[in-house]
Amino acid sequence: MSGAVVTYDCIKSFMKEVLMKIGAPEENAEMTSETLASADHSGMCTHGIQRFKTVYIDRIEKGMIDPKATPTIVRESPTTAVLDGNNGLGHVNGTIAMKMAIEKAKKYGMGMVVVRNSTHFGIAGFYSLLAAQEGMMGMAGTNARSSVAPIYADEPKLGTNPLSVAFPSDEAFPWCFDAATSISPTGRFEKFVREGKQVDPSWASKGGDTPLTDAAAFLKMYPKGEAYLHPLGGKEEVNGGHKGYCLSEMVEILSACFSTSSFLSQIEAGAKTTGKYEIGHFFIAVDISTFRDLDEFKKSVGDVNRELRAAKKRPGYDRIYTAGEKEYETCQYGLKHGVHIPQTTVDEMTELKKKYGVSVKLPWE
Amino acid sequence: MSGAVVTYDCIKSFMKEVLMKIGAPEENAEMTSETLASADHSGMCTHGIQRFKTVYIDRIEKGMIDPKATPTIVRESPTTAVLDGNNGLGHVNGTIAMKMAIEKAKKYGMGMVVVRNSTHFGIAGFYSLLAAQEGMMGMAGTNARSSVAPIYADEPKLGTNPLSVAFPSDEAFPWCFDAATSISPTGRFEKFVREGKQVDPSWASKGGDTPLTDAAAFLKMYPKGEAYLHPLGGKEEVNGGHKGYCLSEMVEILSACFSTSSFLSQIEAGAKTTGKYEIGHFFIAVDISTFRDLDEFKKSVGDVNRELRAAKKRPGYDRIYTAGEKEYETCQYGLKHGVHIPQTTVDEMTELKKKYGVSVKLPWE
Repeated sequence: MSGAVVTYDCIKSFMKEVLMKIGAPEENAEMTSETLASADHSGMCTHGIQRFKTVYIDRIEKGMIDPKATPTIVRESPTTAVLDGNNGLGHVNGTIAMKMAIEKAKKYGMGMVVVRNSTHFGIAGFYSLLAAQEGMMGMAGTNARSSVAPIYADEPKLGTNPLSVAFPSDEAFPWCFDAATSISPTGRFEKFVREGKQVDPSWASKGGDTPLTDAAAFLKMYPKGEAYLHPLGGKEEVNGGHKGYCLSEMVEILSACFSTSSFLSQIEAGAKTTGKYEIGHFFIAVDISTFRDLDEFKKSVGDVNRELRAAKKRPGYDRIYTAGEKEYETCQYGLKHGVHIPQTTVDEMTELKKKYGVSVKLPWE
Repeated sequence: MSGAVVTYDCIKSFMKEVLMKIGAPEENAEMTSETLASADHSGMCTHGIQRFKTVYIDRIEKGMIDPKATPTIVRESPTTAVLDGNNGLGHVNGTIAMKMAIEKAKKYGMGMVVVRNSTHFGIAGFYSLLAAQEGMMGMAGTNARSSVAPIYADEPKLGTNPLSVAFPSDEAFPWCFDAATSISPTGRFEKFVREGKQVDPSWASKGGDTPLTDAAAFLKMYPKGEAYLHPLGGKEEVNGGHKGYCLSEMVEILSACFSTSSFLSQIEAGAKTTGKYEIGHFFIAVDISTFRDLDEFKKSVGDVNRELRAAKKRPGYDRIYTAGEKEYETCQYGLKHGVHIPQTTVDEMTELKKKYGVSVKLPWE
């Protein structure tokens, strides 16, 4: 297997240093590298260091993201707020917005903060987990450029529009759901290209409604509107595709309509004309202790998990997981053995290190 | 086609009178008949008059639901509350809880009210729409007795756990998503039995992981744990079944763990021992005007809908819908032409009318 094995600390400190060299203040570099490294750490490797150069550094170099920016408050009520992300790093906007929602929930029981004029914020689960770590329910989501077709459409309109929800539990890890509202995120296509594999025919189609299993072709075609993903539930109503489509629009509305951000085709069009995506995010925190004793709640969530895992297994399967469990195990493994990164990422890190004169020692040096 | 055509007013006043004859105070009978009739009205006919006798009146007669009960406040904060439903009608508990969440949102921007010790509340969309009618985002859900298998399980554990979200828009109808987190709700199986049709093989399996297309067999087998529904996304992870499974557990946690209600197998076990389901619901309201001008928000939601509908169509399709649009059209049709009910329901209404000496004239008399 080509590539290399890297520690969490190496990934994080490498990204932090590159970000600081390219102009991010230390706090911004810290928040961004922490969010990105947490993705690698929990096995969501399509959203961490593997995208660091192409989705963040390249865009900062092109002026599409301002690494210096911090969000400003546009409007505020006791429990709600609208922030302007000022085209800064999505991770900075996301972290500050969720922390603000948590503070509001501490005071009033609930908090909801939305962000306009932002950029790719990494994994949604990072933000919902910030709330779970404070004994709260967390919810987070974002819109994204068009890649998903509405049911019965022959072109992409919605983004993969991820939704994350987290609850604290009495187990070693919080309950955390974090998923694209399409069957597959685009990041998994990037992974399949690197692995030279075809994707499942249920995931995407090209214009004219023909299943498309060539991951590289999909990645070239969807930004031109020539291919598209299918929503969770698939492309037909009989299997519930209309439900995934609605969940995707729900995330679009929560991200864009509350914050006055770009939506649907405006995102790609904006990037082409102004060079900015101007996407929106939303963050919700709910203080569980206003409903019942937090420890009792945690035990109750753990009890639900334990009963689900103890269910009778389907022939051929010996284990049932609950949300966040696989990520926790991957994280434990990664802390012990490090994280494997593909050769493309090794090459990108080597290039960035040279370009920005980074001091962090890389394991292959 | 056997059966009959009934007006919305006839359905509603008939149910209201039966409920009052069986002991419900007028306010309880009003809330319950309004919620149930609104299901018939919007085409969600599996959740209206067709279930009136079996799911509500029969259970009231058996002492499983107390038609006189109203909810009491267990705990309260500025934005949150826990209500005890006192084993009353779910529609009464739901309506009062959502109205309380709306009042809290008017004061503080957000509100979340959960209910314990409740019973079947009808369609979740009724409650989220109460918030949308007040210019708010509404969210509602409930747990239910075991019918859905976790991914890789061979028995039902989760309920169909419906989730509804609604937003006001500038169109003739609000945006409203209301769906079971399984591919199909059990109510659709009841409909297929009446129509003598087989269900899609993706919807359910019997023990040993064999697809089950016999709707009547499924309805007999699932309460005994011998058959189960699959979550949205289906039974395999490759098509996203783990996402539907997580959404279902999310609704379970929001409904049961916040309110201290029965969950998973406790619901059926409780019904067998105490005769009570003791399920939980949750209701969330968010005041949109704390984020931006309400009319601008409504236009923005309408703009998202309009762009989605205008997308290029897949070969063989000439229309794309958005959430709530089909229900609105069904409602318009129903107001003009009445609602068709099957012969079973005609017979049940005739029986109830005689038994309770109801004065409302039925169209077949």
